[in-house]
Amino acid sequence: MRSVATREDIRDLILDAADRLLARYGYRKMTMDDLAQEVGIGKGTIYLHFPSKEEVVLSHVDRIVARLNEEQSKIARVCGDAPARLRRMLVKRVMFRFDSVQHYTESLSDLLSALRPNLLTRRQRHFEDESRIIAAVLRDGRREGVFEFRDAATTARTLLTATGALLPYNLSARELGKREDVEAEAVRVVELLLNGLLARTDSKAKRNGKR
Amino acid sequence: MRSVATREDIRDLILDAADRLLARYGYRKMTMDDLAQEVGIGKGTIYLHFPSKEEVVLSHVDRIVARLNEEQSKIARVCGDAPARLRRMLVKRVMFRFDSVQHYTESLSDLLSALRPNLLTRRQRHFEDESRIIAAVLRDGRREGVFEFRDAATTARTLLTATGALLPYNLSARELGKREDVEAEAVRVVELLLNGLLARTDSKAKRNGKR
Repeated sequence: MRSVATREDIRDLILDAADRLLARYGYRKMTMDDLAQEVGIGKGTIYLHFPSKEEVVLSHVDRIVARLNEEQSKIARVCGDAPARLRRMLVKRVMFRFDSVQHYTESLSDLLSALRPNLLTRRQRHFEDESRIIAAVLRDGRREGVFEFRDAATTARTLLTATGALLPYNLSARELGKREDVEAEAVRVVELLLNGLLARTDSKAKRNGKR
Repeated sequence: MRSVATREDIRDLILDAADRLLARYGYRKMTMDDLAQEVGIGKGTIYLHFPSKEEVVLSHVDRIVARLNEEQSKIARVCGDAPARLRRMLVKRVMFRFDSVQHYTESLSDLLSALRPNLLTRRQRHFEDESRIIAAVLRDGRREGVFEFRDAATTARTLLTATGALLPYNLSARELGKREDVEAEAVRVVELLLNGLLARTDSKAKRNGKR
């Protein structure tokens, strides 16, 4: 039995608290004092983990993306043929991030305005991690003769770009309110993209022959 | 010969001045006084046309989109088969808007932070205008037997969503700096989408047979 919280546990507790306070107060009104109180630790301890409120919230976004990447990696490894896996991964990309901010859509605009330049820098790194996972499935699909494309890494990034407009960052709070509309549009974009990746006649016939 | 400026002329002069001042001062620092001085008219005259600085800048964005829509309508009417026209229209969408803000990328983040909720509302209307133009070309392509899709209006919106992440609104100032990278990515996204729209074998063979 472990009775002492580890460094990672405390970090996670702080990020959990940030998630709740973003919903309760919004980004601008939330303070490091509020965070300390919500976790039930001293403010000094928060500063041992994060140099600023900004860094807490950026790390909170990082954690959302890290969790999404775990989900995507799971899908990449286990179920179905490459198009089915890729479809699930790309729709998951949109819906997981949608759900992650669903309880504080009201204050999202506030948060995005305040952190925009830093978020964009972080997003570069998130893009790279995600595109590696996607590229692996693209290569699987090419080996199976289902997909046709030039370069897996480039194509992965193109898929991320084409689904990027549906991420919370790019939607108004009002649009974010309608989960089923976001999902329907995500499915349409992903279907069109997947259709664009499919190998034409020859390899497709080969694939069908194999089954 | 026309010697008196019309209402529309003055409106355009104010928007031209806003365009220059956004580059010189940025959104937050620009005032209605600066605008009046730049146009060479009284501040009262500016207020006859626009109730606020915010409204000037939103109208400036509207004008960019209106001009883009004119360009797209021209392409829709004149040149090439449907896929070629659609390709040009979608790449134009990204590059025209890129070029429109190129001289004030430094202050773009500032403008976007300040106007985000209002810009998102405007964007809904811009989307509708643009998707009507795109839908017409989609229908042409279906008549030619080149494209396959269910509903033209929905598909047009999906194409706008999938290219939306490349609009200035969604790029960091740094990313915006590299025109050729944005264009290359736009071309990749558009090619993948067009590929997804192409009718499979039967109608494609028919089309090739026609030539």
